[in-house]
Amino acid sequence: MPFSLTILGSGAALPTSRRNPTAQYLNCNERHILIDCAEGTQVQLRKYGIKFQRISLVLISHLHGDHYFGLIGLLSTMNLLGRTKEIHIFGPEELKGIIELQQKASGHRYAFYIHFHPTKNDGAELIYEDRFIEITSFPLKHRVKTCGFRISEKQKEYTINGELFREDQLSLQAIPFFRRGEDYQDEEGRLFPASKYTFPPKKSASYAYFSDTALNMDNVIHAREADLLYHEATFTQRHAERARATRHATAGQAATFAQAAGVGRLLLGHISSRYADSEEHEQEARAIFENSEVVEDGSVYTC
Amino acid sequence: MPFSLTILGSGAALPTSRRNPTAQYLNCNERHILIDCAEGTQVQLRKYGIKFQRISLVLISHLHGDHYFGLIGLLSTMNLLGRTKEIHIFGPEELKGIIELQQKASGHRYAFYIHFHPTKNDGAELIYEDRFIEITSFPLKHRVKTCGFRISEKQKEYTINGELFREDQLSLQAIPFFRRGEDYQDEEGRLFPASKYTFPPKKSASYAYFSDTALNMDNVIHAREADLLYHEATFTQRHAERARATRHATAGQAATFAQAAGVGRLLLGHISSRYADSEEHEQEARAIFENSEVVEDGSVYTC
Repeated sequence: MPFSLTILGSGAALPTSRRNPTAQYLNCNERHILIDCAEGTQVQLRKYGIKFQRISLVLISHLHGDHYFGLIGLLSTMNLLGRTKEIHIFGPEELKGIIELQQKASGHRYAFYIHFHPTKNDGAELIYEDRFIEITSFPLKHRVKTCGFRISEKQKEYTINGELFREDQLSLQAIPFFRRGEDYQDEEGRLFPASKYTFPPKKSASYAYFSDTALNMDNVIHAREADLLYHEATFTQRHAERARATRHATAGQAATFAQAAGVGRLLLGHISSRYADSEEHEQEARAIFENSEVVEDGSVYTC
Repeated sequence: MPFSLTILGSGAALPTSRRNPTAQYLNCNERHILIDCAEGTQVQLRKYGIKFQRISLVLISHLHGDHYFGLIGLLSTMNLLGRTKEIHIFGPEELKGIIELQQKASGHRYAFYIHFHPTKNDGAELIYEDRFIEITSFPLKHRVKTCGFRISEKQKEYTINGELFREDQLSLQAIPFFRRGEDYQDEEGRLFPASKYTFPPKKSASYAYFSDTALNMDNVIHAREADLLYHEATFTQRHAERARATRHATAGQAATFAQAAGVGRLLLGHISSRYADSEEHEQEARAIFENSEVVEDGSVYTC
């Protein structure tokens, strides 16, 4: 099952020719998720060949424009192109009114239904769950109400050793037990241990998204052992004072956070347009957490 | 004095890699005017080297997203870059609430003042006037309240023939009379005819903007003898039925309108993404009005 993240915008507030502001697309087990949606995101989605009508879940971290000004345009285009499939939007409660006001002013209703789910700001919450994935939101430390998100595959099923299963002529009734990793006992009391007939499930992948936020070690729990952690690093240590004042993070802080959470890989983004390249950020982060890199528009990460 | 129009977006509702949706920039006698502002306009302004902090007047024709979704992002960027100079926005009255709601959600007030001027939909109106230019708005025929705009230089002053003026030792009191093209009579009753001492003023340039609209010959008066007329031509005759249903115009209709108005040059835009090139539009228009052309993103027109 795919678990693939595409960076649609890697920059901070001001769009540049190199870095669009924040938006990301995650295909998690064929759940198509858009995370933040800056101005220009619909063009980025086209540019990177993503079929955006497949998006069914939209997660908006907060209502600074560089994280959501492209949403109304994307929804409008989805409608113009004939979408009828409902969509779920998770974000600050004011977002509903903003979308609806613009929709009303346009004089036409969309042909698809929008489910708005306001995010909480007083604690973590499971905001979405289905058979294969789950998504939690949790408050970040920024100038306005902001949430991070963690998207995780649910624990996967055990794989049955088909050859042994057939050889020992096991009943099909054993299958659901084995899939869950449980032993099976037949009607005659014979025990068939899962350890013999199954292979352990593949590791479930998870992605933790932290933008925008000052360093907040209380949130390490939400990134714990994620395969991928995206943590904003608007600044480097050189501008630590500016980071503090604007409630953003430095590359070093993001790396400290990644180290404490024991993640697989740290992705740094929301890079201020004052930095000409990624070197300073990567150097600073890697001194603390080796597996760090600055994302670019169009970067793809899988696990 | 400059009179220069830059096309920032020449396409219809759906942005493509070739055509951004509608936005235009007019420098009219150093009045810097933005006309409509689709998503992505701030990036287009940068791309074409326009110093957007100089923009002081914004004209929004209507509240379909492909004409204004980029405005909030542009205003937000203006603020981030330290703008303190006020700005005037003319457009449908609902626009004020849309901007204010998003501004409020962002948690910070702009450091510059926005003057909102709601446009009328029951007749033409002089919406702006200063020493050098004037702007009128007038209702178009679209699915929602929509206004077109005409931006005109005021009648220019007569130029004084300095050589003759000095030769005949005329009083400085004659100057304001001559500038207006009036004869001057001195205290002794001597008459100095303007026709002798002045050159006629240069022609005043004017630009008429019609997007989006079905053909409406009642509006010819607002385009009368404009140097430049921009008229939407979303479709060609081949899709005349679709044009009628959506209250858009065909290239042939735009040309008929230009012909009746006796304009200098017809610019066709808001081209539907279903057309691969401009040939069909230009052929259709030129059969009726020779001086017609389809605009492209980045085209510049001066007069």
